[in-house]
Amino acid sequence: MALKKSCRIPGLSSDQLMTKLREFREMIEEGLSKLPLSKKSSELFDPIRYVLTLGGKRMRPILTLIACDLFGGKPEQALDAAIGIELFHNFSLVHDDIMDKAPLRRNQATVHERWNQNSAILSGDAMLILAYQQIAKVPQGKIPSILELFNQTALQVCEGQQLDMNFESSNQVSIAQYLGMIELKTAVLLAACLKIGAVVGDASEQDAERIYQFGKNMGLAFQLQDDILDVYSESHLFGKQKGGDIISNKKTFLLLKAMELSQRMPYKQEELMQWVHAPEFDPEAKVQAITGIYDYFQIRALAQTKLETYYHKALALLDEIEVAPEKKEILQTLTASLILREV
Amino acid sequence: MALKKSCRIPGLSSDQLMTKLREFREMIEEGLSKLPLSKKSSELFDPIRYVLTLGGKRMRPILTLIACDLFGGKPEQALDAAIGIELFHNFSLVHDDIMDKAPLRRNQATVHERWNQNSAILSGDAMLILAYQQIAKVPQGKIPSILELFNQTALQVCEGQQLDMNFESSNQVSIAQYLGMIELKTAVLLAACLKIGAVVGDASEQDAERIYQFGKNMGLAFQLQDDILDVYSESHLFGKQKGGDIISNKKTFLLLKAMELSQRMPYKQEELMQWVHAPEFDPEAKVQAITGIYDYFQIRALAQTKLETYYHKALALLDEIEVAPEKKEILQTLTASLILREV
Repeated sequence: MALKKSCRIPGLSSDQLMTKLREFREMIEEGLSKLPLSKKSSELFDPIRYVLTLGGKRMRPILTLIACDLFGGKPEQALDAAIGIELFHNFSLVHDDIMDKAPLRRNQATVHERWNQNSAILSGDAMLILAYQQIAKVPQGKIPSILELFNQTALQVCEGQQLDMNFESSNQVSIAQYLGMIELKTAVLLAACLKIGAVVGDASEQDAERIYQFGKNMGLAFQLQDDILDVYSESHLFGKQKGGDIISNKKTFLLLKAMELSQRMPYKQEELMQWVHAPEFDPEAKVQAITGIYDYFQIRALAQTKLETYYHKALALLDEIEVAPEKKEILQTLTASLILREV
Repeated sequence: MALKKSCRIPGLSSDQLMTKLREFREMIEEGLSKLPLSKKSSELFDPIRYVLTLGGKRMRPILTLIACDLFGGKPEQALDAAIGIELFHNFSLVHDDIMDKAPLRRNQATVHERWNQNSAILSGDAMLILAYQQIAKVPQGKIPSILELFNQTALQVCEGQQLDMNFESSNQVSIAQYLGMIELKTAVLLAACLKIGAVVGDASEQDAERIYQFGKNMGLAFQLQDDILDVYSESHLFGKQKGGDIISNKKTFLLLKAMELSQRMPYKQEELMQWVHAPEFDPEAKVQAITGIYDYFQIRALAQTKLETYYHKALALLDEIEVAPEKKEILQTLTASLILREV
């Protein structure tokens, strides 16, 4: 994960932070490569191997290792749980991609495209079970609490995906409902990654709850940044089509805010809704026109403000955690690099 | 579950056995009805409620309660695990039905037919997570061993489903491969149901392993009986089309055995393969013709012999279990009623 110099906070040197993050990432890659994916059932496990080698930032499992380390635990002790979380995340991507009919993930063919839909359903199921197999390896006394949090989170992620699908066919989605959806679909998993690492690292209950709330706010900010980058990113590093959300009428914070604000300005509302409902259109023209409407209502700045509210709330929660300030630097830096990603 | 008088083995009266089974079944139904299925996410949980009220024999969770009781445990202690297993079984049915494009399950519309495919994928996922939520409620000291067995079994069931799908497009399936597939897809889950109940009931390791092997053999016999009943059942009590396997060219023990034996009789082989490969056919005529070929090769008796080998192996393993013989009666009676189901 590349860190920008501007995100540095004094303390550990930037090099030391980078080294630590690289070490954590290598631990994750090694852990993933050692998974017992039988060669016998290749039809079942080949798609899993494929998905796990598509890459990705490994943000979630790295957060688990960081949280364990933060409270004085050995990151190795949290590795199984971290791998379990990465498996869970990838399971959810494989099944979501079927549901969303997505042809590409990280610029490569999705499992249901490369194999077929049945393969994607079944190897996704197997990945979810493998996730539990890893979670079950945490120190025995901690299994009940970690399993409870993991189960609760996994169910919330399903609820989030269901809401996301419901929103596609609804014309009545409020900003509050959208924020509730991304909390379930994205934020609680980041929160759980951190809390699970904290539990393995013997954090106090209070601190475990603080880091959970930190993660939730960080996750909300992260998703809002994703919404912004989809429209305003100049680079296409993260493998998505620019304006993809606009083209597919995805009800992001930006679109919902524009719909809300244009209610008071009928001709802008009409322009927006004409593009949204257009059965046929030139994609570039649609992206340009809707971006123009966003600019008119200063939607980007509004999204940025909302993002910063969550970001600062997250930082305040991190501040409250009762460990030495210099130990928090890695999390501050990583959060900054994730949320203040350059446009 | 109706017990036939002929299956009775001396000891407890038939009425007492029936009462016990009815009590266990009521415990399961009550446990299922108390599941925390949020009313909020109705799109996610409605399909789950629907599937769980379609009925079914509840054979798997009842086996868990019986096994716990067998070793002197209180069946209530195994109830959470039993409910978890029933949820897992139903998850696998919902996803298998998508993969098999099945329109009906227990004479009712399948989830992907009644709702849609995305609903079936996502509510299936949620059911798998709910299964783990129940499994996590077993007495704390027993979580690691039960979770390990459950995870292993769940993965084997996926492997079994994968093999079952592979077999559809393969012309080279041996009887041994078929038996390996049904062991994974069906038998190990019955085995695990019993072993999990045994672990909750504090069985010795040896006895827990014996009841596991008992369940596996029982499961193999059960599946062979299913194959036989599909062709030879006069009643349609279990909600399947008579000869459905023949119509869909399902590679059951019967078809594979007929293919094997007809190799030495080219004109019979030709007749069989013509029906199998016929792009269009009258379903009744196909069922009648292939049943005729089965009869010619005495396939039913061969399947019955194989079934009885597993059945007697199961009973021998049950004999070895170190509990008072009268405690085993319920399992003997239930097994007999399941495996010697009337045609």
